[in-house]
Amino acid sequence: MPFKKAAQNPNYEAVVRDSFSRQPFMDHVGARMTLIEPGICEIMLDHDPALTQQHGFFHGGLVGSIVDSAAGYAAFSLYPENSTVLTVDMKVNFLKPASGKRLIARAEVVRGDGKLYHLKGDAYCTDGDARTHCATGVFTMMCLLGMDDAPNLGRAS
Amino acid sequence: MPFKKAAQNPNYEAVVRDSFSRQPFMDHVGARMTLIEPGICEIMLDHDPALTQQHGFFHGGLVGSIVDSAAGYAAFSLYPENSTVLTVDMKVNFLKPASGKRLIARAEVVRGDGKLYHLKGDAYCTDGDARTHCATGVFTMMCLLGMDDAPNLGRAS
Amino acid sequence: MPFKKAAQNPNYEAVVRDSFSRQPFMDHVGARMTLIEPGICEIMLDHDPALTQQHGFFHGGLVGSIVDSAAGYAAFSLYPENSTVLTVDMKVNFLKPASGKRLIARAEVVRGDGKLYHLKGDAYCTDGDARTHCATGVFTMMCLLGMDDAPNLGRAS
Amino acid sequence: MPFKKAAQNPNYEAVVRDSFSRQPFMDHVGARMTLIEPGICEIMLDHDPALTQQHGFFHGGLVGSIVDSAAGYAAFSLYPENSTVLTVDMKVNFLKPASGKRLIARAEVVRGDGKLYHLKGDAYCTDGDARTHCATGVFTMMCLLGMDDAPNLGRAS
Repeated sequence: MPFKKAAQNPNYEAVVRDSFSRQPFMDHVGARMTLIEPGICEIMLDHDPALTQQHGFFHGGLVGSIVDSAAGYAAFSLYPENSTVLTVDMKVNFLKPASGKRLIARAEVVRGDGKLYHLKGDAYCTDGDARTHCATGVFTMMCLLGMDDAPNLGRAS
Repeated sequence: MPFKKAAQNPNYEAVVRDSFSRQPFMDHVGARMTLIEPGICEIMLDHDPALTQQHGFFHGGLVGSIVDSAAGYAAFSLYPENSTVLTVDMKVNFLKPASGKRLIARAEVVRGDGKLYHLKGDAYCTDGDARTHCATGVFTMMCLLGMDDAPNLGRAS
Repeated sequence: MPFKKAAQNPNYEAVVRDSFSRQPFMDHVGARMTLIEPGICEIMLDHDPALTQQHGFFHGGLVGSIVDSAAGYAAFSLYPENSTVLTVDMKVNFLKPASGKRLIARAEVVRGDGKLYHLKGDAYCTDGDARTHCATGVFTMMCLLGMDDAPNLGRAS
Repeated sequence: MPFKKAAQNPNYEAVVRDSFSRQPFMDHVGARMTLIEPGICEIMLDHDPALTQQHGFFHGGLVGSIVDSAAGYAAFSLYPENSTVLTVDMKVNFLKPASGKRLIARAEVVRGDGKLYHLKGDAYCTDGDARTHCATGVFTMMCLLGMDDAPNLGRAS
């Protein structure tokens, strides 16, 4: 019986996009959320010299970071209201140097229940029609119930 | 017989610090290398609102990214001349929210041979005297021989 | 450009099945290889009380172990002659208790080159028509060239 | 502030050893628990041809499996009464072939709270005075409250 990705919160898209917009680090690296569906999220960013390592590729840590963010929001899209998301762990294999004009991270929930969500996530680099699969990983996310995702508000009433 | 961390390249410190200085992404997030010894590396950064997630903590992906960089350079310090370092994979568990004024990543080679290096890495947040262990992980690095670490030069002569 | 799973050794199936048959531990747990194609491997075993943990499910460590074996042989199927396979690391998330009459592990190469192969692997439990996805993971395998896979023979001539 | 490993259940040793004794798979591979303290566990097994891979070493999957068991019981030793332990994920790097007369797995809780426990675990092979560090990893365990660890009893009353 495959896991069915069904949103518990009808406003999941607004909730996820609002949370993403409150992550200054995503803005600092120029990341934008290009797709959010129940249990699936894509985040994209354009090449910028400030984001590279010594060979001019997207920095590997940044690649892992963007896939982790996509995984977190893919999980969050399935959470009930008045909850927030926490990364328990990230595991990423780097397949190829992240060389290209654009980096696309895509993550998907494999299975999840009340507390724990398991996800797979991948990163691709594109340059015109060329597309390189540069990273693949598995992530664990926790669902914190009764905890508001917005800052400075503490536990939800 | 424990693994002995011995540098093969007497100029390892200059080589590592030079490589780090050529990673624009490390500069973009304000990271500096505070310690490099054979098989050990520490990287530090100060809290900045631009580096946070929605609760004001250091962004988890950034935390993983900084520990990954420390792991890469800890491995690189043991490599011979005319080589470069590649992350094969990163695995990070997040222990506590990365809350504090400063983030310190420390990585250490557990074992390594010609090609593959295995490392453990940790991240700590500090705030005055308080110190929180916020992440721990295991990393695999590859040693690419005959490949210059400097950009635009291709294979070493 | 997706990775193309092409065998370098025309006798890959015989080589892989021979190697598997020389792993006493696989026999000790009753595992059999049910599929081997270039870059893909399936290993299966039947429920036996000797293989369980305290709740009567397949032991989690065994589940991880069988997926790791499938990953190793999926990689090995793409290796050239006179080589052997080594697990660099295994990362497995446990999705559901491994409850069922049969355990099926399936692994597939995501990308690989001369030295390093990256794989994804999954475990399923079946009980009649019911099928539960109980584990998913990512694996790194190394290709050791010039090293015979058969025991007591040392390096290939 | 380092994590303090304190047992919540004064009978933790009896509870852990009883659970271990109810894992037929541990008996099937000849594993015995040689140390259990709050947050720390060691499991040992002797070399037996039935436990090997094609080169006569301990099978890598078995090595991972034994460290995973040690990690599970190290976590379980810190749990309250009427609870059981579940592996969320395992991540193991293989440092050296597991060659020796005896395999020793040791795991330790790095941090844990009500639900999630993070552990590090290592495997060593010994042969007389020689001791080889053959694997290192990070594990995540969950604490299931109100769930009896003993089989066929279901939820604790």
